[in-house]
Amino acid sequence: MPNSKKKIIMGIDPGLATIGYGFITLEKNPQFIACGCIETKAKTDFNKRLNIINKELTQLIKKYKPNICGVEQLFFCKNVKTAMNVGHARGVIIMTLGQNKIPIREFTPLQIKQSITSYGRATKKQVEEMIKLTLNLKQAPKRDDASDALAIALTTLYSKKY
Amino acid sequence: MPNSKKKIIMGIDPGLATIGYGFITLEKNPQFIACGCIETKAKTDFNKRLNIINKELTQLIKKYKPNICGVEQLFFCKNVKTAMNVGHARGVIIMTLGQNKIPIREFTPLQIKQSITSYGRATKKQVEEMIKLTLNLKQAPKRDDASDALAIALTTLYSKKY
Repeated sequence: MPNSKKKIIMGIDPGLATIGYGFITLEKNPQFIACGCIETKAKTDFNKRLNIINKELTQLIKKYKPNICGVEQLFFCKNVKTAMNVGHARGVIIMTLGQNKIPIREFTPLQIKQSITSYGRATKKQVEEMIKLTLNLKQAPKRDDASDALAIALTTLYSKKY
Repeated sequence: MPNSKKKIIMGIDPGLATIGYGFITLEKNPQFIACGCIETKAKTDFNKRLNIINKELTQLIKKYKPNICGVEQLFFCKNVKTAMNVGHARGVIIMTLGQNKIPIREFTPLQIKQSITSYGRATKKQVEEMIKLTLNLKQAPKRDDASDALAIALTTLYSKKY
């Protein structure tokens, strides 16, 4: 059973409209498993959007069975309303991980960039390129949020806190 | 079946450490049913605190079967970290109400005070006294958060949006 001890590491880039997710594992090198986005539409009721996040995240956890999940900490942008909406969504994300007994690690955007590029002020493009190289992808994920989620998963892997 | 059409109105004062709740109904006058607080301890893991809120709120909904729930909107205090923690908890509260198909009404602190006392700048003490008088209670609820939750339930009742 060569795969029985292989750890699955998830990363989540929290949001309300778009929640990026990524799954990786470690063989000799970090290996890509999957990435994508959960999406909720602005015209959908707020409570339904939060329930969509809960349900779809639960489905992903059941499908990929992560052993741990890294979640980006919120930074406080100028738009307080947006930050607060993301806070609501992030609460649902954290709760859903807890419901499914997935241990959580939290990282700031700076910690993630430093972990991926050894350079805190890297551009989004540089982070994307590093993700592509590290995970040996033919091309970077189409969506920023999915790419960010893989960066968070890699940061969790590198942190060895799993 | 005299009670079959009696609406049960819930109010929630959101928080992370203390979540106030109150249930009322309308006969000739507004009637008190129950009030209290869900509490989570600071030393408990954040994701467990959010799960306690989800579980205990679900139990209250199953017990009292509200037809609608008023939830206070967050105002943005100086402590951004506190506001964001409450935002996470409020997201779980809104999601839990949605899971249980309870329609939600949201009110600002000012709307609640104006609704209860016809005077937006009322003190906490004045609001408490109005709650006590309106619901014909022998004494005001011991906990501010429970009293505030009853004020939110009454605001929901007065708004006729149920």
